[in-house]
Amino acid sequence: MDRQHLKQLVKEVIIEMTKPEIPIGISNRHVHLKQEDFDKLFPDEAVKKKKDLKQPGEYAAEQTVTLVGPKGEIPNVRLLAPLRSFSQVEISKTDSFTLGIDAPISLSGDLSQAVEVTLKTKEGSLPIKGCIIAKRHIHMSEQDAEIFNVKKGDLVKVEVDTPQRKTIYEDVVVRPHKAFVLEMHIDTDEANAANVSPSTKCRII
Amino acid sequence: MDRQHLKQLVKEVIIEMTKPEIPIGISNRHVHLKQEDFDKLFPDEAVKKKKDLKQPGEYAAEQTVTLVGPKGEIPNVRLLAPLRSFSQVEISKTDSFTLGIDAPISLSGDLSQAVEVTLKTKEGSLPIKGCIIAKRHIHMSEQDAEIFNVKKGDLVKVEVDTPQRKTIYEDVVVRPHKAFVLEMHIDTDEANAANVSPSTKCRII
Repeated sequence: MDRQHLKQLVKEVIIEMTKPEIPIGISNRHVHLKQEDFDKLFPDEAVKKKKDLKQPGEYAAEQTVTLVGPKGEIPNVRLLAPLRSFSQVEISKTDSFTLGIDAPISLSGDLSQAVEVTLKTKEGSLPIKGCIIAKRHIHMSEQDAEIFNVKKGDLVKVEVDTPQRKTIYEDVVVRPHKAFVLEMHIDTDEANAANVSPSTKCRII
Repeated sequence: MDRQHLKQLVKEVIIEMTKPEIPIGISNRHVHLKQEDFDKLFPDEAVKKKKDLKQPGEYAAEQTVTLVGPKGEIPNVRLLAPLRSFSQVEISKTDSFTLGIDAPISLSGDLSQAVEVTLKTKEGSLPIKGCIIAKRHIHMSEQDAEIFNVKKGDLVKVEVDTPQRKTIYEDVVVRPHKAFVLEMHIDTDEANAANVSPSTKCRII
């Protein structure tokens, strides 16, 4: 390798190594609801905020539901808000075995392959054909996308360097948006498989 | 790069690419018991075989226990046999949250950091300081170890190429033994995080 190519290689390595670390957000199972479905499950109630989430404007609500599948139930599944234009249930693959449903791994918002699960509260019960296992993804601003040299929909590899269970997750979808804050979203299976703790950060490689 | 080095590189790639694929064994939560503990939990019973496992001589028993922790219980946890010289409980990290215990990620057999969990049956209840989350590992014969050019205790990287969730697991411990059959053992969190199905195979990279 000549001097010219070697310099280029060193430059690439430095750019690679100085890319910002990415905080990890662990998504526990949760539901998004449209107004009509919320009203059936929580008649005469308003959405009550419990806690802000990291993505601006998003928050966890006080309201929870029980998920009911052919094989089992999962109680205390939290509503995330604000309400959306469609209802969506996001679970882990472990949860799908508990419930006995064959949920697809899909990008949040893509319900083309979503399966049915029943949502239950004190006030009502409602089957929703909107259950998926969320595909891992990274929220980032448009400026972040420039720094990382990626664009919407790109698949990247992310190194999660933790004690005992270092893991490289491939197939991570890039989701840049002007309102987003840098954060990789993985589910509880993915977090546990890689021994992720609240302080773990990761890196695109 | 000169002709000599290029030939060497091509050779290494071919060896790499023709290494045998490794079948995956998904370890669900289970217990191993020593005779004394078995007798307390199942007085006047013998171990009853339910199903042979892939590793020669190992089998799943008909007997199951309930795990009890400060935060929750997990029923129907299977006994693997034959009985051993020490009792050991292997759970996933997801299970550790259900039970409310801070189990370490340790290699099977290393109980130096193991935590306590209670085993319960109809006949008895027994606290055992032997609960771990098993570190991922590969069983292989001594001949396999030669083919892979690895030795006992080596840490290798394993590529799990599945739809939607391609993953590279690092920190995989090599466990060669003359009686072992080639099989990577991962737990249910790791299997679900990588979207592993019964037919998935993987490769050391």
